[in-house]
Amino acid sequence: MKKIGMIGGVSWLSTIEYYKIICELSHRHQVDREPSGPPAIPEMAIESLNINKSFNMRGTPGDDASWAQFDAYFNAALKRLEDSGAEVAFIASNTPHNRFDAITKGVSIPVISIFDAVAKCCAILEIEETLILGTAPTMASASFANVLASQGIKGFVPTSDTDKSSVVDLISKMQSGDIENKANVIGDIVKNCTGQFIKKPIAVCLSCTELPLAYPDNLDDATFENNGVLYLNTTVIHATSVFEYASGLSI
Amino acid sequence: MKKIGMIGGVSWLSTIEYYKIICELSHRHQVDREPSGPPAIPEMAIESLNINKSFNMRGTPGDDASWAQFDAYFNAALKRLEDSGAEVAFIASNTPHNRFDAITKGVSIPVISIFDAVAKCCAILEIEETLILGTAPTMASASFANVLASQGIKGFVPTSDTDKSSVVDLISKMQSGDIENKANVIGDIVKNCTGQFIKKPIAVCLSCTELPLAYPDNLDDATFENNGVLYLNTTVIHATSVFEYASGLSI
Repeated sequence: MKKIGMIGGVSWLSTIEYYKIICELSHRHQVDREPSGPPAIPEMAIESLNINKSFNMRGTPGDDASWAQFDAYFNAALKRLEDSGAEVAFIASNTPHNRFDAITKGVSIPVISIFDAVAKCCAILEIEETLILGTAPTMASASFANVLASQGIKGFVPTSDTDKSSVVDLISKMQSGDIENKANVIGDIVKNCTGQFIKKPIAVCLSCTELPLAYPDNLDDATFENNGVLYLNTTVIHATSVFEYASGLSI
Repeated sequence: MKKIGMIGGVSWLSTIEYYKIICELSHRHQVDREPSGPPAIPEMAIESLNINKSFNMRGTPGDDASWAQFDAYFNAALKRLEDSGAEVAFIASNTPHNRFDAITKGVSIPVISIFDAVAKCCAILEIEETLILGTAPTMASASFANVLASQGIKGFVPTSDTDKSSVVDLISKMQSGDIENKANVIGDIVKNCTGQFIKKPIAVCLSCTELPLAYPDNLDDATFENNGVLYLNTTVIHATSVFEYASGLSI
């Protein structure tokens, strides 16, 4: 089992979900082995960043230079993980993946991208198009749509500015710890976007790692249905992909 | 705010509790400040160890040399936290504190001890004696009792081997993720030990960071009452003490 490096704190709620999923997958993986002592978990190094700092370091979409501080904050953390002996790393958040190339510059261990993991999952599920709900930078950037396109999948964001604002407001509340009764809010936004889909059934990518917290009964599910909509839980898909890589299951 | 270093994974369930408590304390601390962006959390470096490895590295009580591997595993992790820029560190577990001096050897940042934090809390609450429930090494070692004694408090463990075994079995189940309906088991053990107390009310130290998980309604409480017994939640006491130190509240 490889040592796993995680960049967390953005936000801390999803950091807990990632950590829990990796530990539970590890338990499940050993269930028939009857270890001597408590079940093993992978060794991990976690750099939990200050989300207030990273939020205020965000730049303007399309203006690379304006992201320099943000990129450097994550890049330095990845390098600290590498120095701590991590053999594979990941960022427990969607937003920084819009700056993936800049953030991973000079890092020599593999960094497993959430966008790659989700695009591969969509391809396996034969999803042809998906609505992307995420933070303002995720919805403004073409990064995720480009990764999806490389797997032949069309990714799009809400066309209406009101819907986009509703998603951003929702995430802001959830990142401050207010996660109760949020599934209906997401359901309403999705309903407004129904006309954007050509193919059915409707597949929605919860592309901010807090959004799946709105569905407490589905926290462990990579995908789940709610009111006829297929949701993709990016946290579970990403964490599973990291665990499989670290445990040698996916290679 | 100082960067906090945590040694976790032993077990991962209590690592989540510590992380959650520190982040929630941080939110509460800023509640009136209306920050621009999501509430800040302290930067943290976490080294999550493999509990199966540390469990199998345990030595024999009283035989220092037999603990060499165990000591080195934790000591190296503390040094990695220091290298990651942590300015204060702690171990999110009671058991390794029985080897505190060996584990912290050569570490130059302050390491906040759970035994110190709990003893100070007992002194503030004017607790004169307390039953210590913990892992086999914690109940076999005089370390915690000595720290309590330095504050004028008498700490003792169950006299009966059956009760000691019940505590160890319970912790083993909890560390494997089986945490449902465990408060009664603890209550029965405490009842068997009632005769060991001279002073009343009975105060019980949950000196293994999994034991407080048996009381899901009291996960955020430093102390709480259950069936006339005063319980000390060592996880909350320790995490609060670390947060206060890092935020400059306690100095």
